[in-house]
Amino acid sequence: MLLNKSFPIGYIFKHIRADVVRVLLISIFFHLLKLALGAYLPLIPLQLPAILGSLISLLLAFKTSQSYDRWWEARKIWGAIVNDSRTLVLQARTFLPDAYRQQAGPGAPLPALAYRQMAWCYCLGQRLRGLDPMAGLGAYLTPPEHASILPQAHKPLALLTLHADQLRDLYQQGALNAYQQVQLDATLTRLADAMGQAERIKTTVFPVSYRLLVYSFIYLFLMTLSLGLVKTIGLWEVPVLLTMSSSFFLLERTARYLQDPFSNKPTDTPVTSLARTVEVNLRQLLGEPAPVMPAVPETFYRM
Amino acid sequence: MLLNKSFPIGYIFKHIRADVVRVLLISIFFHLLKLALGAYLPLIPLQLPAILGSLISLLLAFKTSQSYDRWWEARKIWGAIVNDSRTLVLQARTFLPDAYRQQAGPGAPLPALAYRQMAWCYCLGQRLRGLDPMAGLGAYLTPPEHASILPQAHKPLALLTLHADQLRDLYQQGALNAYQQVQLDATLTRLADAMGQAERIKTTVFPVSYRLLVYSFIYLFLMTLSLGLVKTIGLWEVPVLLTMSSSFFLLERTARYLQDPFSNKPTDTPVTSLARTVEVNLRQLLGEPAPVMPAVPETFYRM
Amino acid sequence: MLLNKSFPIGYIFKHIRADVVRVLLISIFFHLLKLALGAYLPLIPLQLPAILGSLISLLLAFKTSQSYDRWWEARKIWGAIVNDSRTLVLQARTFLPDAYRQQAGPGAPLPALAYRQMAWCYCLGQRLRGLDPMAGLGAYLTPPEHASILPQAHKPLALLTLHADQLRDLYQQGALNAYQQVQLDATLTRLADAMGQAERIKTTVFPVSYRLLVYSFIYLFLMTLSLGLVKTIGLWEVPVLLTMSSSFFLLERTARYLQDPFSNKPTDTPVTSLARTVEVNLRQLLGEPAPVMPAVPETFYRM
Amino acid sequence: MLLNKSFPIGYIFKHIRADVVRVLLISIFFHLLKLALGAYLPLIPLQLPAILGSLISLLLAFKTSQSYDRWWEARKIWGAIVNDSRTLVLQARTFLPDAYRQQAGPGAPLPALAYRQMAWCYCLGQRLRGLDPMAGLGAYLTPPEHASILPQAHKPLALLTLHADQLRDLYQQGALNAYQQVQLDATLTRLADAMGQAERIKTTVFPVSYRLLVYSFIYLFLMTLSLGLVKTIGLWEVPVLLTMSSSFFLLERTARYLQDPFSNKPTDTPVTSLARTVEVNLRQLLGEPAPVMPAVPETFYRM
Amino acid sequence: MLLNKSFPIGYIFKHIRADVVRVLLISIFFHLLKLALGAYLPLIPLQLPAILGSLISLLLAFKTSQSYDRWWEARKIWGAIVNDSRTLVLQARTFLPDAYRQQAGPGAPLPALAYRQMAWCYCLGQRLRGLDPMAGLGAYLTPPEHASILPQAHKPLALLTLHADQLRDLYQQGALNAYQQVQLDATLTRLADAMGQAERIKTTVFPVSYRLLVYSFIYLFLMTLSLGLVKTIGLWEVPVLLTMSSSFFLLERTARYLQDPFSNKPTDTPVTSLARTVEVNLRQLLGEPAPVMPAVPETFYRM
Repeated sequence: MLLNKSFPIGYIFKHIRADVVRVLLISIFFHLLKLALGAYLPLIPLQLPAILGSLISLLLAFKTSQSYDRWWEARKIWGAIVNDSRTLVLQARTFLPDAYRQQAGPGAPLPALAYRQMAWCYCLGQRLRGLDPMAGLGAYLTPPEHASILPQAHKPLALLTLHADQLRDLYQQGALNAYQQVQLDATLTRLADAMGQAERIKTTVFPVSYRLLVYSFIYLFLMTLSLGLVKTIGLWEVPVLLTMSSSFFLLERTARYLQDPFSNKPTDTPVTSLARTVEVNLRQLLGEPAPVMPAVPETFYRM
Repeated sequence: MLLNKSFPIGYIFKHIRADVVRVLLISIFFHLLKLALGAYLPLIPLQLPAILGSLISLLLAFKTSQSYDRWWEARKIWGAIVNDSRTLVLQARTFLPDAYRQQAGPGAPLPALAYRQMAWCYCLGQRLRGLDPMAGLGAYLTPPEHASILPQAHKPLALLTLHADQLRDLYQQGALNAYQQVQLDATLTRLADAMGQAERIKTTVFPVSYRLLVYSFIYLFLMTLSLGLVKTIGLWEVPVLLTMSSSFFLLERTARYLQDPFSNKPTDTPVTSLARTVEVNLRQLLGEPAPVMPAVPETFYRM
Repeated sequence: MLLNKSFPIGYIFKHIRADVVRVLLISIFFHLLKLALGAYLPLIPLQLPAILGSLISLLLAFKTSQSYDRWWEARKIWGAIVNDSRTLVLQARTFLPDAYRQQAGPGAPLPALAYRQMAWCYCLGQRLRGLDPMAGLGAYLTPPEHASILPQAHKPLALLTLHADQLRDLYQQGALNAYQQVQLDATLTRLADAMGQAERIKTTVFPVSYRLLVYSFIYLFLMTLSLGLVKTIGLWEVPVLLTMSSSFFLLERTARYLQDPFSNKPTDTPVTSLARTVEVNLRQLLGEPAPVMPAVPETFYRM
Repeated sequence: MLLNKSFPIGYIFKHIRADVVRVLLISIFFHLLKLALGAYLPLIPLQLPAILGSLISLLLAFKTSQSYDRWWEARKIWGAIVNDSRTLVLQARTFLPDAYRQQAGPGAPLPALAYRQMAWCYCLGQRLRGLDPMAGLGAYLTPPEHASILPQAHKPLALLTLHADQLRDLYQQGALNAYQQVQLDATLTRLADAMGQAERIKTTVFPVSYRLLVYSFIYLFLMTLSLGLVKTIGLWEVPVLLTMSSSFFLLERTARYLQDPFSNKPTDTPVTSLARTVEVNLRQLLGEPAPVMPAVPETFYRM
Repeated sequence: MLLNKSFPIGYIFKHIRADVVRVLLISIFFHLLKLALGAYLPLIPLQLPAILGSLISLLLAFKTSQSYDRWWEARKIWGAIVNDSRTLVLQARTFLPDAYRQQAGPGAPLPALAYRQMAWCYCLGQRLRGLDPMAGLGAYLTPPEHASILPQAHKPLALLTLHADQLRDLYQQGALNAYQQVQLDATLTRLADAMGQAERIKTTVFPVSYRLLVYSFIYLFLMTLSLGLVKTIGLWEVPVLLTMSSSFFLLERTARYLQDPFSNKPTDTPVTSLARTVEVNLRQLLGEPAPVMPAVPETFYRM
């Protein structure tokens, strides 16, 4: 989630520097060209860059809207993960008979499920961001669990498999009846769906062709505008072109940053904060005191 | 919900005063600049501010649309809370055997469930608005319930846990069969989902970068328009610039106020009114007379 | 549903008369002002009203789109009511054993359910439109049922409660097994959801601020356009301003009428017609002959 | 579904002929008027028709988008019908014990269900298009089934009732257990929902007021444009006005044709082709050879 | 999925070559015409092509948006296929008793189900792309399975039928209880739905009329623009017209390529990569080592 105050316009501006320099060079080149060849260049009517400006604005509005939708969808998916994590433990609390539920110490079924779920949230977030998915999981998993998922290629899927195995064992021991097993399995299915949906957003690149088209249109806009301003405003042309095109580039780049919400960037979905929310909530459901969280390293996000 | 008549344009105007004053100063500064340096300033063709005006209009249309969607989604979530609250009590009424259902007095299962559900609605609304979540809950909860949720960090989640515990006890006593327990559990899951969805809207800040971009574009629009009007309309320039930019700022601010529907502001989702609707409906399902509600403090809202 | 032919443009025009008169007065006032003070008034470039025109068009497009969505959502909700009404009776027909299903005469369970469902549809439609919710229900309910819901505040909810009570009785008598009870209960839950969704649309006022902003922008557009036409077209200015602004007002008003589809107006969702469709379909499921419907009083609607 | 190649622009053009002729007459009338009264007519600035052109474009974009959504929703509904038809027979194949499943000859339960489902698809498509719903059903229904639905008002609903009766009989004979009955009933419910959704699209007329408004705006655009071109382009005015307004009318008409996808027109949802797809798929599930389909009469569609 | 870097603008440009050449010829023809007949041609005001430019931009924005939605829906459908494939095997792993689950060698139920599911994914992807649906399936199916689906018309449906038959056998042998059978059947239903949805996108042609209208509007825009530039910019007219119209054509074509995501083109949904993801995940669930995949032939895609 974005901090209300400190959004890094500077951070984004840094990334359009190359475009700005290119526009500067183009503007100066056109200006010199017009000084030398003024008589031979056509006076483009300003309606032409205006038409291109409308087209660029509409394309940027489309891109902004789709990027926002991806970003909001990513947030909804993680919201569903928070909800279903709570539901999973709440259901287990409701369904397990007293003997199982009140069991404590190592291997107690309810804490094992809850801690594995916390581990799954951290693990999935780290995998989506391209970080080490196992980092820090030792605190939530038993050593055998930790060892069993280490060799697996897809760690969060391996953790879900452990959940499924535990549910089967509880059913075979008679601690869950058939309906309860099926109901808990439905919650696992929703968690698996959310995992797959987040992976879909992570791995599906927004069609690059639109970016290339928008860039071509902006350069075309610059050229026609520059020719349209021949002899009108003199040297002032350079800052005017620069400002107009930087606006377009800045908007395009801002939209692009929202598109990929699992890229370890300031505009990401705050997966670590959300995983912590899950941890705090699940510990409450286990009757444990609220954990003292380490200082938040995601300085750009806020829950 | 907004009152049809008394929407506080004045209230919003108060918040854009700073921008209006800034625009006033800019207009006057530009006017003086042009008086002094008129000969050196370029005559910007009016097509340039027109292109910027289109871009700003499209961005504001996008922002208006997304804000409305957030506001409407918040309203839908609370609509689902009203529906599922009714469903929860209706299902309990249908499923509980006569001995349990017709029980009266303290500890009777059906009223306990219904009153706890009313408490959950009030508690969630107050938490979302950043108010004391426990305010007024004493009237709906038994003293032990009240005491048990007081130390918990997440009060509405604690109330859902009490619901789940009651369902487990009823199942263990044989008052609910396995299918009925699972069906009621599905209703609890939907309530937990609605709670999480409202929290998602509350905690996810709309990308600030768009606001900053829109603001930059408006100031850019002002500058090019002011330069475009050099020597055309004289002192009239100041009110013209002021009116055009205030329109843009007012629209941006109106959209921003809809974005955050749980901020204890006049444009909020009317969570207190909706919780009262739930109370009236649930009391009808319990066969109680309609309660006399205290005077409504939310003067801006209407159910 | 709107009649394809006789949509009342005149009906809507009647409601914008006040605005049209106001615009007429403003135009004449400006015209006289310009005759008197022409030398002192600025010549506003026509790009300014053009920018405002774009902004107004975009806002009206947004409002048109959201109004249509509300209207279509209301229609979908009532479509779901038609579907689930059929499903409820079809499921009861499928699930009830022969002895119960083929029972006839007063108190027979299948007709009682079906007639109560018809009553619910009429009752909900009348309540949404602010009419007497009990009007005409005597023909569908037994006298005890009628008497029992009369004192209740929320009549359609009271009818759903009677449904739920009947399902419980059938389950207790062994006429329904546990799965069948749960499946029928799920249909009741969907009906309760549809009821709550229709109430949400009825009670949520579309943000008024947008209307006020659009109105301000239209008046601003008129003023700048009038100043932009100084000395250009003379007396023709008055009809030109009148036509342009009436277009905007007419569009705004048309959108506003679609927003509130349960207001007892010609553009409403045709709740009475849809309730009759339900009655015809349910009577077919009971094996009764198609009823002769009284002449349709909703002259503007068509199924 | 539309053929990729032969979409009938000519077919649509035929329907806007009246508008084109009207525009032609208006253009000629204005031209003559200007020849006669040129001195008294105002010179409308071309910004005015440009503002109207933007408004018309936005309204047409809105209408195009909503029409496409209706058309796509209709296609989705029929896609769901194809899916659920397959699922219904696949579930019956999975759930029925061998003795029932492998039964052959008249009255065998699995073929009876599958053939009745094919009949339902054809019957629903014909009813939606306003054709004889019973045409050709004799090949799929047993004579008693055919006779029993003939007197019913709503034939597809009557066929669903026969499905429900068969499921009840199979349950009463012990061929289906309670869960399986409920699961098949859920599939029937989805089919009933799809039927109701298609009926909703069929019977809900798109708000006519928007069409009337768009038409008024186009004529207003023509008038202001014609006055704006006074003395500029002479006789060329007539083809220019004709071409511009025909573009708008053509776009409006194209959108309108997509709005009503069950009107027995070339742009319809291809309900007959889709019903045939269902027939081919269900025969495969019965183990029958692929049927030889008669020549396709829907020359404009393609599956 | 599109590669981030190498998107084939050149590939698309190749396909608009014909349009570009046509525009070139038209521009030259108009230029010669104006040289010869200049005196007789009207000077079209540039507002007219500007209005057409707005209309074209809005139509292209609509088309871009709908194409993107189709492309994203196709990706979501295949994402659901990945999720439900994992869920199917995870559920079987959870539900099957130890004796069945731990069985190895030919005919073991869990590997048979998982390999058949891999085969289904490859088979569906190839069928959607119009390739041989049986290619490479020998590695995943037993010879009898392979032989049994070979004569069937709809191979993926035949594979789903084999799934359903296996579930029935397991239920009849008592390896699955009734709830578990129903739960697995629900997963099969979702897979069948996803199959039908992908087929819907494959077989539904986007309304061609919009493309024809956009093309007509672009040519009309060219003509009015060319007439509007009479005597203004001389020979420069040709490259200006060429560049403006190529922008429109390029955007239209890019949108069109996204519309059909199962066409064996570089912009397709990466069905082969996704089927491989399924294979890798399911092999992990079977406890097999990660397979060594052959070199990826889809050089344009990336998972």
